[in-house]
Amino acid sequence: MKVAILGATGETGTSILGALLDSTEPRFEITALVRKSSLEKPEALALKEKGINVVAADLSGPEDELARALDGINTVISAISATGLLAQIPLINAAQAAGVKRFLPCCFAPIIPPAGILGLRDIKEQVINHIKKVKLPYTIVDIGYWYQLMLPRLPSGRVDYALPITLGGIPGDGNTPCAFTDLPDIGRWVARIIADPRTLNKMVFAYNTVLTMNQAYDLLEEASGEKIERNYISEAAVMEGVARAEANCPPADSFDYFEVVKYQYFNALGIRGYNTPEYARYLGYVDATELYPDMKVTTPEVYCERLLSGKATIIYQRLMSAAQ
Amino acid sequence: MKVAILGATGETGTSILGALLDSTEPRFEITALVRKSSLEKPEALALKEKGINVVAADLSGPEDELARALDGINTVISAISATGLLAQIPLINAAQAAGVKRFLPCCFAPIIPPAGILGLRDIKEQVINHIKKVKLPYTIVDIGYWYQLMLPRLPSGRVDYALPITLGGIPGDGNTPCAFTDLPDIGRWVARIIADPRTLNKMVFAYNTVLTMNQAYDLLEEASGEKIERNYISEAAVMEGVARAEANCPPADSFDYFEVVKYQYFNALGIRGYNTPEYARYLGYVDATELYPDMKVTTPEVYCERLLSGKATIIYQRLMSAAQ
Repeated sequence: MKVAILGATGETGTSILGALLDSTEPRFEITALVRKSSLEKPEALALKEKGINVVAADLSGPEDELARALDGINTVISAISATGLLAQIPLINAAQAAGVKRFLPCCFAPIIPPAGILGLRDIKEQVINHIKKVKLPYTIVDIGYWYQLMLPRLPSGRVDYALPITLGGIPGDGNTPCAFTDLPDIGRWVARIIADPRTLNKMVFAYNTVLTMNQAYDLLEEASGEKIERNYISEAAVMEGVARAEANCPPADSFDYFEVVKYQYFNALGIRGYNTPEYARYLGYVDATELYPDMKVTTPEVYCERLLSGKATIIYQRLMSAAQ
Repeated sequence: MKVAILGATGETGTSILGALLDSTEPRFEITALVRKSSLEKPEALALKEKGINVVAADLSGPEDELARALDGINTVISAISATGLLAQIPLINAAQAAGVKRFLPCCFAPIIPPAGILGLRDIKEQVINHIKKVKLPYTIVDIGYWYQLMLPRLPSGRVDYALPITLGGIPGDGNTPCAFTDLPDIGRWVARIIADPRTLNKMVFAYNTVLTMNQAYDLLEEASGEKIERNYISEAAVMEGVARAEANCPPADSFDYFEVVKYQYFNALGIRGYNTPEYARYLGYVDATELYPDMKVTTPEVYCERLLSGKATIIYQRLMSAAQ
């Protein structure tokens, strides 16, 4: 099965690429779509060494050229950066022209209503609506919140290495259920989903576990033997934070934009409790844990151990170094 | 089962109300929500005579008053006029506060993508998104295009009585499939759908038949024995009409707005072919003809006979007299 990936070197793209490379049944023939100017960069050369077909794709260029780059591709997976979401529109048109059989727009996020809660989700909805307008076959995959953003730092500082960004607080009373997934497992879910005809033209929610923030803190306290201060942020303070962050909205491609996203997430995940299997079903999602009951995923306990043993995946390295 | 209807005296509302009154299994206890200023109007008094509970509901008033009007109501059906779609927002909030178990926003239309094709559909999407934001249980019901707007006039003039508005042309080559429903059957579909737990938090497409415009013309020619001129409107002319109508957009509450809607429909139904069971499934709709295979509906042949015999439902009477 021929699969093209956009954003193959980002956090989600790396996870997806790794799982597709690991898969033997089915075997995926992978094309990475990269900027022409990036063709000779170390990341692109590293992809080539893994046997990946690296192809230039200029999203702002002519759509027929893009369509030629997608010739013969069965499935396109977009894991574009959050700041480039609308650049998917020409890729969607090209995929439609090229006869692509399934397009996964860049979602891979918590379950959030289509409008009015999280700015990034509103933009994703524009992209999804464009897909529907041009009748391109699609699968929407959302995956909950990353384990990698779930836990707080410890007083000892020993997990700081893997937590460049933390929420820095617990919204509400900390008892709202929230679905989480280990970043490396995202690709494993995606590999199952794109090989499955049942998920065509469907929204799929793939997640590893459901925990409240209090349960997540309990877990790390127990595994580490350290006591962690719980900084509860009241609903009123969260809503004030949302209003303040939205009013002084930094550019969406700046590191500071995380402040906006953080408060919108506090509200969505901790106060309103959208990121759950029940709410996903209400929105029309199919539940991947029901489609693939045999799927073995990393539990939060195992992730905790990995984190404490210094072996956790480190995220946002480039973003962090760019901000310094 | 306690059901409240908004817009009970409109075209769709009348169809729904009639079917709910006719139903014996289940039996519906019906509340009509009307403006305070309309409580003593002949239409409201006529509703009362049918045993319907007529209650004042001020959509622009305090939401807690609206919520009190919905106390104990199981299902709310909104068949508000196309010009008042956004007035549903406070009703949705009130329904949520009152613990309503199912809300049907005003859809009851052809299958159209959520954005960018039909102005009215874009507004409906805003309403649907608000429902999802407040987590109100919902059912989206779309019903295709009305038989009552499907057929052209005859040279003899004998069906003009029932066709105050006609499309006045056939978009494209007339061979695009399009789903149609007889207006009086809408209510019968809705009565089944709202009594069915399988349709909760789902989009449902209920339609009587699928025909191309050429097939619809053939049908009327055969039944009437008259030859009808076929005024084909090319894709280019349709798209020009869309652009022109959208550029000189009359107020959405004016009779002239039909010109905008007409061209947008030409495009959606006749050129792009969205209004089909296949595209509905692609968007995530459940097919009511599969849910209720025993449902007997009016065929286009029977509708044609009714039209020719002078007994067809006459639509838009008030709108027409207001425009004169």
